[in-house]
Amino acid sequence: MIYFDNAATSYPKPRFTLDAVGEAFRRYGANPGRGGHKMAIETSEMVFKARQELITLLGGEDPERVVFTQNCTGATNLAIKGILRAGDHVIISSMEHNAVWRPVDALARAGVIRYDIATVVPDDPAATVENFRRLLRSNTRLICCVHGSNVFGTLQPVEEICAMAHGEGILFLLDAAQTAGVLPIDLRELPADFICIAAHKGLYAPTALGALIVNCDEPLGTLLEGGSGSLSKEPAMPPFLPDRLEAGTVNTMGIAGLRGGLRFLRRRTVAGIHRSEMALTDYLYEGLEKIDGVILYNRPQLPVLSFGIEGMSGEAVTEALAQKGFALRGGFHCSPLAHQTMGTYESGTARIGIGAFNTREQAAALLRAVAAASCRQRGAVADP
Amino acid sequence: MIYFDNAATSYPKPRFTLDAVGEAFRRYGANPGRGGHKMAIETSEMVFKARQELITLLGGEDPERVVFTQNCTGATNLAIKGILRAGDHVIISSMEHNAVWRPVDALARAGVIRYDIATVVPDDPAATVENFRRLLRSNTRLICCVHGSNVFGTLQPVEEICAMAHGEGILFLLDAAQTAGVLPIDLRELPADFICIAAHKGLYAPTALGALIVNCDEPLGTLLEGGSGSLSKEPAMPPFLPDRLEAGTVNTMGIAGLRGGLRFLRRRTVAGIHRSEMALTDYLYEGLEKIDGVILYNRPQLPVLSFGIEGMSGEAVTEALAQKGFALRGGFHCSPLAHQTMGTYESGTARIGIGAFNTREQAAALLRAVAAASCRQRGAVADP
Repeated sequence: MIYFDNAATSYPKPRFTLDAVGEAFRRYGANPGRGGHKMAIETSEMVFKARQELITLLGGEDPERVVFTQNCTGATNLAIKGILRAGDHVIISSMEHNAVWRPVDALARAGVIRYDIATVVPDDPAATVENFRRLLRSNTRLICCVHGSNVFGTLQPVEEICAMAHGEGILFLLDAAQTAGVLPIDLRELPADFICIAAHKGLYAPTALGALIVNCDEPLGTLLEGGSGSLSKEPAMPPFLPDRLEAGTVNTMGIAGLRGGLRFLRRRTVAGIHRSEMALTDYLYEGLEKIDGVILYNRPQLPVLSFGIEGMSGEAVTEALAQKGFALRGGFHCSPLAHQTMGTYESGTARIGIGAFNTREQAAALLRAVAAASCRQRGAVADP
Repeated sequence: MIYFDNAATSYPKPRFTLDAVGEAFRRYGANPGRGGHKMAIETSEMVFKARQELITLLGGEDPERVVFTQNCTGATNLAIKGILRAGDHVIISSMEHNAVWRPVDALARAGVIRYDIATVVPDDPAATVENFRRLLRSNTRLICCVHGSNVFGTLQPVEEICAMAHGEGILFLLDAAQTAGVLPIDLRELPADFICIAAHKGLYAPTALGALIVNCDEPLGTLLEGGSGSLSKEPAMPPFLPDRLEAGTVNTMGIAGLRGGLRFLRRRTVAGIHRSEMALTDYLYEGLEKIDGVILYNRPQLPVLSFGIEGMSGEAVTEALAQKGFALRGGFHCSPLAHQTMGTYESGTARIGIGAFNTREQAAALLRAVAAASCRQRGAVADP
């Protein structure tokens, strides 16, 4: 199998991740924050170091602002439901994943909030920002925008949208599921109030682990309540982070694995991996351009590349490629809004998720397989 | 270190668990339900088998009723917030963990529900059931009861409470954090509507993984919305289980590890492990009874044993033992209600969590260390 589904989850995980998980089973097997014995303390310290290393990667300083969640969806839900109050208005982009659209829509259906969708104009940041601005209302409390599209690999002008939001006194949520670890992100340049992370993708943690970076001092309501290992006699969750938002036992094995993934990132550097992933992405894009019958969209700025073959659904394309041993994802990628925006709502797309371990040879083989599939499809149409 | 903190999380994990996680990094590295390629399908199948094996262990039949959660707290919150509606009344026991008390209390503070706490009378099941019954109201919708106390190892008469609830048309939630895998549980004899499980404890999964068994057909509201890999174009989560309640990527590594843990349980049998754990628990209880200055509570029916030393807080006791290399948990164990019920709300307790890998030699060493700590304490009091 040749794996090109890294936008769903990265595979394989680096040796560092596997080793860190193996070590954790021996050294960090206790429940952190739930006991004063040596292994519980060492496990707590390990978890704290993971917070520290993650916030450092993002150019931040306070490890207590790192909240571990079950996945990136856990992070978006925590932030969206934690911050919004009855009567608030929200703006989301037209490229959002269901991890943002669905919780926002659920709150709207429950009559708690209202929301609008700002149309992203690919390759026109100013028009995109203007589309957000014109939806502002006096009660707009939160703007949510996906950093990089999980379908098309396009980047939204999130620095500008964040600055516009802050200029209006509005909070900004960045869905960095596809970008944390994939692109350099620096909180000093992109001071989003909430950053939602899928640690099992670009940060090479085991599947699944997520994190919410709470980069503002707004009091957050809780979504889950339970044991916190602190202020245990109180009926409410503690007021301080991260305890307030981490109910129950945290995923210590996943967090240990994240530390391995972060070590891998430090070793190869985010910029270095990005360079090599984008070289492959460009190679694939340019190769696909030359294949008759292939449909391409905006040139991706991330190692996530959607394409189609005329007359085939995205799923049919990936099924044909799966039979040749290639792992891609076809269909709608849990992002119907993005497909509406890009005109692929009926067909879906086939998505190539390029990762740190993909090679030029694998990409060349994929191009040959796509050419063969497209050729077969055209043959089938010409000679039914 | 001698580990006696298995009620927080089991340690070490069986070789089966470690091997299953190691294998999963190689074989099940894809995102299940998020792609039609071979590894995604095989990963989906692996997750499905885990559901099957878990429901089989519990005497149930339908693997789709197994919802994986981030931990047991994720399960209690999903059920409690998914089922309760404005105006409902809830009864919880006086032995509940914060994983049940805090979400119920949060709903009450938000004005959504009201709740009462039924006093558990240890060793008097009839009185306990009667205490639940006398709190019934016409709008009582849900009764929640912890199966085994995470502090005192006492069992609540949950079969009787469940039968009483069902007789009144009321739903029953069982918090089986301390009992799933530790005691034989059979859904045919204990048909709780919701069973909340900490897979990383008695089921020997990696820390942390939880599961909610939805053993009723009541429609459940969602707590988290996001990608479900199904009906992706809909703004709402799918109506069917488990997709409805599993937003975002599931913890495949933890689930693979759970399969290893379940294999371990099948090999040694739940009843067999329970027998050997209870033999050790009895040995410890009887040994502690003989030590001057030791305070004991009701004899535990689970391998969870709380004790105290006169004049010392539970935390002070476990700190003294930690210095001798023993891992216990002291304090309130995220269960202030249980401590109120048993009269230990000021001192807390020291808790011994006995596990499948503890030995008689370790227990004997622990008894010697407790005797020494108690002796020192009495010496300090007598000769300050």
